[in-house]
Amino acid sequence: MIIVMQSRAEDATVDAVRRRIEDLGLKAHVSRGEFRTIIGAIGDETLLKPEYFAGLAGVESVVPIMKPYKLASRDFHPQDSVLEVGPFRAGGDSISVIGGPCAVESEAQIRQTAHVVRDAGGAMLRGGAFKPRTSPYSFQGLGEDGLRMLHDVGAEVGLPVVTEVVDVRDVPLVERYADVFQIGARNMQNFRLLTEVGQAGKPVFLKRGPAATTEELLMSAEYILSEGNQRIMLCERGVRGFDKATRNLLDLAAVPVLQQASHLPVIVDPSHATGRRDLVVPMACAAVAAGAHGVMVEVHPNPEQALSDGPQQLVPEAFRQMMDELAPIAEAVGRHLHRGDAA
Amino acid sequence: MIIVMQSRAEDATVDAVRRRIEDLGLKAHVSRGEFRTIIGAIGDETLLKPEYFAGLAGVESVVPIMKPYKLASRDFHPQDSVLEVGPFRAGGDSISVIGGPCAVESEAQIRQTAHVVRDAGGAMLRGGAFKPRTSPYSFQGLGEDGLRMLHDVGAEVGLPVVTEVVDVRDVPLVERYADVFQIGARNMQNFRLLTEVGQAGKPVFLKRGPAATTEELLMSAEYILSEGNQRIMLCERGVRGFDKATRNLLDLAAVPVLQQASHLPVIVDPSHATGRRDLVVPMACAAVAAGAHGVMVEVHPNPEQALSDGPQQLVPEAFRQMMDELAPIAEAVGRHLHRGDAA
Amino acid sequence: MIIVMQSRAEDATVDAVRRRIEDLGLKAHVSRGEFRTIIGAIGDETLLKPEYFAGLAGVESVVPIMKPYKLASRDFHPQDSVLEVGPFRAGGDSISVIGGPCAVESEAQIRQTAHVVRDAGGAMLRGGAFKPRTSPYSFQGLGEDGLRMLHDVGAEVGLPVVTEVVDVRDVPLVERYADVFQIGARNMQNFRLLTEVGQAGKPVFLKRGPAATTEELLMSAEYILSEGNQRIMLCERGVRGFDKATRNLLDLAAVPVLQQASHLPVIVDPSHATGRRDLVVPMACAAVAAGAHGVMVEVHPNPEQALSDGPQQLVPEAFRQMMDELAPIAEAVGRHLHRGDAA
Amino acid sequence: MIIVMQSRAEDATVDAVRRRIEDLGLKAHVSRGEFRTIIGAIGDETLLKPEYFAGLAGVESVVPIMKPYKLASRDFHPQDSVLEVGPFRAGGDSISVIGGPCAVESEAQIRQTAHVVRDAGGAMLRGGAFKPRTSPYSFQGLGEDGLRMLHDVGAEVGLPVVTEVVDVRDVPLVERYADVFQIGARNMQNFRLLTEVGQAGKPVFLKRGPAATTEELLMSAEYILSEGNQRIMLCERGVRGFDKATRNLLDLAAVPVLQQASHLPVIVDPSHATGRRDLVVPMACAAVAAGAHGVMVEVHPNPEQALSDGPQQLVPEAFRQMMDELAPIAEAVGRHLHRGDAA
Repeated sequence: MIIVMQSRAEDATVDAVRRRIEDLGLKAHVSRGEFRTIIGAIGDETLLKPEYFAGLAGVESVVPIMKPYKLASRDFHPQDSVLEVGPFRAGGDSISVIGGPCAVESEAQIRQTAHVVRDAGGAMLRGGAFKPRTSPYSFQGLGEDGLRMLHDVGAEVGLPVVTEVVDVRDVPLVERYADVFQIGARNMQNFRLLTEVGQAGKPVFLKRGPAATTEELLMSAEYILSEGNQRIMLCERGVRGFDKATRNLLDLAAVPVLQQASHLPVIVDPSHATGRRDLVVPMACAAVAAGAHGVMVEVHPNPEQALSDGPQQLVPEAFRQMMDELAPIAEAVGRHLHRGDAA
Repeated sequence: MIIVMQSRAEDATVDAVRRRIEDLGLKAHVSRGEFRTIIGAIGDETLLKPEYFAGLAGVESVVPIMKPYKLASRDFHPQDSVLEVGPFRAGGDSISVIGGPCAVESEAQIRQTAHVVRDAGGAMLRGGAFKPRTSPYSFQGLGEDGLRMLHDVGAEVGLPVVTEVVDVRDVPLVERYADVFQIGARNMQNFRLLTEVGQAGKPVFLKRGPAATTEELLMSAEYILSEGNQRIMLCERGVRGFDKATRNLLDLAAVPVLQQASHLPVIVDPSHATGRRDLVVPMACAAVAAGAHGVMVEVHPNPEQALSDGPQQLVPEAFRQMMDELAPIAEAVGRHLHRGDAA
Repeated sequence: MIIVMQSRAEDATVDAVRRRIEDLGLKAHVSRGEFRTIIGAIGDETLLKPEYFAGLAGVESVVPIMKPYKLASRDFHPQDSVLEVGPFRAGGDSISVIGGPCAVESEAQIRQTAHVVRDAGGAMLRGGAFKPRTSPYSFQGLGEDGLRMLHDVGAEVGLPVVTEVVDVRDVPLVERYADVFQIGARNMQNFRLLTEVGQAGKPVFLKRGPAATTEELLMSAEYILSEGNQRIMLCERGVRGFDKATRNLLDLAAVPVLQQASHLPVIVDPSHATGRRDLVVPMACAAVAAGAHGVMVEVHPNPEQALSDGPQQLVPEAFRQMMDELAPIAEAVGRHLHRGDAA
Repeated sequence: MIIVMQSRAEDATVDAVRRRIEDLGLKAHVSRGEFRTIIGAIGDETLLKPEYFAGLAGVESVVPIMKPYKLASRDFHPQDSVLEVGPFRAGGDSISVIGGPCAVESEAQIRQTAHVVRDAGGAMLRGGAFKPRTSPYSFQGLGEDGLRMLHDVGAEVGLPVVTEVVDVRDVPLVERYADVFQIGARNMQNFRLLTEVGQAGKPVFLKRGPAATTEELLMSAEYILSEGNQRIMLCERGVRGFDKATRNLLDLAAVPVLQQASHLPVIVDPSHATGRRDLVVPMACAAVAAGAHGVMVEVHPNPEQALSDGPQQLVPEAFRQMMDELAPIAEAVGRHLHRGDAA
């Protein structure tokens, strides 16, 4: 960590910083330049917090050198982590597709969608039973009934299922029915929920918040990892942007940024990122070309009747076309698409 | 609600939209222009959701005319709501100041701060016992011990206390000790937590999320209001910005924007908004000049030793100076500062 | 255009709006709902400006229905425009690659780079002679000497050349040496410069500004088109974002958004978008998969010695690898890569 | 400047960085930590550019310690610069108000407005003759006729005048009629225009671009200062935000941020920042409370008839009320309002 002192900082303030570093059991290197004095703290930086110094008199700025996360970092775990759940495989050179409706609406709807997803090669089924909705007056999901339908249909078609958990009290319930917990973008920094799924026994699909940096996403993964759960996928789903042509602003460069910093698989959700059906396939293709370990897309047998997010859900035919386009792109960038319909 | 059809939309698609409007018991007005056909839905717009139409064939865009919130709106409640808790009074032409440390660290620390706040005229005491921290390795608060210290010291100095609740399971515990629940920015869309505090019996201090629009903040307030809890304050604390000179980007225009749309009091938190002690007083003054019903600022008897957010906490002397500046600004804009130390 | 009146708007204010619409020779449709009165203006919307109404008493909001651009829109010109300059071809299903250094630094440097670009299949050579630099103390380019080197080397290797013009007074000079004018992101709304290149006789490569919406980019293209110059390429190069992991935030969804709204070819610049060499190839691949009509990337024979933007310029070997990856991705999405080295 | 090497950087790459520092005549301090090696460059940092190092093998990041601007910085010029033009005085504890229409539309309109502004205490008159408009089909201003009207009316009422220059070729023309050059937000990084007004003999009113950091604004001021023109005012007018409730997002914390970093006066434009007449007065009050050296607001005798920006222009009565509110706020924060109507 580097502490930069204000110009004209007095010796006493420099000394105070030096003493605080040494109190933490680290070595301090003081470099006096013509215009600024800078102080380096050498040693295990996990003992340090910028806030230990930022409040001291005479300090202009504090520059961390080490990343603030550890278990999520590639320094700690150089090889790619690969997550396998049934036919689904993401990480390294393996990519897989997750498909399904925004929300489970009925047994017929989820069954029909599941067949579309499986038959086209999707390797995991999604569907919300607890929906976080901006308005209290919007459809909030079918709850446990929805979980049961999702689970049963997943078993029927041979696909693992992922669904969102929005309440710490629901973790045991959701774990009973789901193969993978989804933490939604609005809950990326619901730290109690992260801790609970970190202690549970199923993998976690962790979405980036709309105002979160890639580093903050990795810090949220660190909460889960530090509870002992190593099976995590990160998901880029767009950040808040100023151009209302799309719902969010998909940050595809986050894919290689996260992959370089971390060993965890990175999935892209082009449906929530864009909010427009006509943009989902191009962005799914772009995600795979950027190196993503998979995509999660919304599919609905009849989007015009959907109870939520109709405009962004693909019709079955579009989902099948997307699968056909993704496979050769994956090969072009040295990846291989795992398919749920494989013999 | 206005539905704009794509150019060259066929009659059948226009008819499908018209029928769906009428199925909802509303009237549809179809206007065929040279380049576009637009369809107006006339009647109680709370029966409508943009998503009922956005997924239909031939629809280019859907333009809501009514606000999506009701109980929070000034249409529904034209007069300002005024929130009173002991000496604290916010709303209408009344403004009050909330002060206290980022986190409760010890009984001595919170007592010392409470006297500073009360003696300078602050009308409510803040202090975190459960701290949501980006890193799992940072100080997470003293928990129930912190709540007890805050409560006891508040009673001692005669100030109500506000503290953050981060977990639905903690609502009864926090309600036992606190006069006002704080919902932090990261939990603005933790809808289960909003529902729980909506059902509890204490007022709610609701912070805007860093990627939330003012309308989304009002929708979150609507969750609380629709559970029957009318005692809410909204808090502007900065949104995510691109200039790293400040921690967040304080959106002071949100103050009159919210006040025009809603009857709820609006408070500003310049400490989290800026993250820099030297900016807190100018931004507190600006907030009151913009018409805010109060400010919440962090004060610490010794910020250099603080366990969190040291750089943004005011020293006692600065807090007192701020109080002296706020009073005449309040008068200049037709407001009156309520003081906790008044006889 | 739809004009939404404030709740409780009086008849006189509604009448004033109606009269203004009729004064413009259009028809007004007034719909009185329970909560709001809305007024539709039917007819040629290019006669209308939102500002004609937004300032009137009682008006709550104005909702344009038609796009504010015309010549750039697909309504006006349904087929893709295809831009050809020598071996370069972009538009429809044709894509091409532009490569070259950030700045022309010497004849040896630009010649060496030009051979790399041409031999690997690039179809246009780039290189800055006038560099817009944030700091007045940074290298500003070689000026006319740089233009001459670029022109001569382009002719030597058989590639057309593109270079930025930053000053209206330089348009004739740059036109003498360049095959394509580049308008940089900082000048996207330098309307005088747009007018000048609109009157000149060479194609224009127009970059999106870092705070510009896709609609504003199309409005800037409209300035050029309305002067009679139809030969324009649009370029997405990243907008300003809050995550400092990359220089800008590449908005790849803008590619299909622009293509759906406009007939003009869309090129992506992953070098300026990311500012990091290790992200350029993944983002170039993603751009082509998203449907871009080409990419512009920075290549330098020795980036470590570059006078500007060293960290984002590809080494020759990386450029060749990128070209090998782009071709099959282009085929996967139904496009064809035109190569400058083709026999 | 601090250069942080990648983990596992080899000795040879560390040596290459050290040699480059020494080649520039500076001293290099190498600190080898357990996880990272960091290298400090000690000496005159104006000799260094991050780009000299960022492209070198093994470099993870480069951290500048010194500010990249010099003449604009408070290090270089510790006292506040005070700009006086006739009755207008901004800087130190002096604040003044600039008022006038968005655009000069006719002699009657500008004369009527000028009297309103002067009589209410405004100290400078604004009015656009060359308007940068997003659409080529919008009113572009009256050109030289507008300049002449502005100049003559300013002389008549005894107020200096400020007007925007958008083209390098117009600098001599605008200088003939104006007392102060305005550089608009879209031209903040039109470096040729900055250079031209830097060489001219009149003060410059420099607006922050919608995607510019405060540091980039100071770098643009540095362009003007480095040409010898010391008479500059900086203007905060909002950055691009995601909440469409306001046109831009006014960053009032930029006022004290700029004042701490620089000696130049800082003015706020709440009209362009918000785009809504009802927000202009609260934001003008907030700006003065935040410590701004003045505000620029749009006033129009009849905004409903304005040819541009009608919705954000104050009516005369609102302007007078604003002046009455600003004076006591200025006093509350230790400032004094200079009035153009003073005897």
